[in-house]
Amino acid sequence: MKYDIERSVEILERTPDVLYELLNGLDEQWLMNNEGPETFSPYDVVGHLVHGEKTDWRPRIQRILEVGTSKSFELFDRFAMYEVSRGKTISQLLQEFKTLRVENIIWFSSLQLNEIDLQKKGMHPKLGKVTLSNLLATWVAHDLTHIGQITRVMAKQYKEAMGPWPEFFRILTF
Amino acid sequence: MKYDIERSVEILERTPDVLYELLNGLDEQWLMNNEGPETFSPYDVVGHLVHGEKTDWRPRIQRILEVGTSKSFELFDRFAMYEVSRGKTISQLLQEFKTLRVENIIWFSSLQLNEIDLQKKGMHPKLGKVTLSNLLATWVAHDLTHIGQITRVMAKQYKEAMGPWPEFFRILTF
Repeated sequence: MKYDIERSVEILERTPDVLYELLNGLDEQWLMNNEGPETFSPYDVVGHLVHGEKTDWRPRIQRILEVGTSKSFELFDRFAMYEVSRGKTISQLLQEFKTLRVENIIWFSSLQLNEIDLQKKGMHPKLGKVTLSNLLATWVAHDLTHIGQITRVMAKQYKEAMGPWPEFFRILTF
Repeated sequence: MKYDIERSVEILERTPDVLYELLNGLDEQWLMNNEGPETFSPYDVVGHLVHGEKTDWRPRIQRILEVGTSKSFELFDRFAMYEVSRGKTISQLLQEFKTLRVENIIWFSSLQLNEIDLQKKGMHPKLGKVTLSNLLATWVAHDLTHIGQITRVMAKQYKEAMGPWPEFFRILTF
């Protein structure tokens, strides 16, 4: 699929509600268990998404539009959520994510980007030159893959309880 | 995690709502594209879940409780949804899944299974002897991994639009 603003916003705007349905009110064991050392729990992932709304997507879009490739993006701290989430309940994080996302979509829509804007380039500190549409497609895929990650982490908690069944579930060996 | 009825039902009962938030009303390209030949689209997966509610989980639970290992489960037709879904919209399939799931949870809860029941055994046509708790844990993990599959399939639609970014997304190479 080619990047398309309308088709992307329809994903971005529903992610907070998907996560709310999936996680709010769940038992702590579903929320806090992870896949092993240095992996994320569902709770961690929501904190990571909150941090991304604050420091990653919007500032990078702005940088492309304002200075192009002349100044590279700030590196995104993929582990900042351990600090960001401290002391917050999953409900608080889910609500915070929703509030930030709604604000960011309103802001993004107000830009009224056209096809020429989408081809503007920025500089990623590791990947080099990227287009605005590359960044925007990644914003969408990042939501989707993190929902996928959360469900995989949760499913893995039952890997032993499933007896011989995991061999039918390629995703559990991932 | 050890299999636990209450913690399992809290997942089973929310899956239809998660899928509704994720998929209802989305553009056809998100719903109908897949990962290549002989792979499932999000639309296909919802049909597969509907078929499972009708023919897989409940009849297998019943068979264990009624005849134990003396008669193996029917094989589940993983491709039956192509027939089951024919002519239905995604909204209809999502609603059908929700209705069936609610009925199945009510039925399942009415069984009031205890620890001894959970250790009862059945015969899987390929995996051999399995316990009721193995089957019930798999019901939960099956929901979660299919939500994960749907989001992965959707994210992959933007793999090219993302430019160089997919290398940071292990899940997209899966």
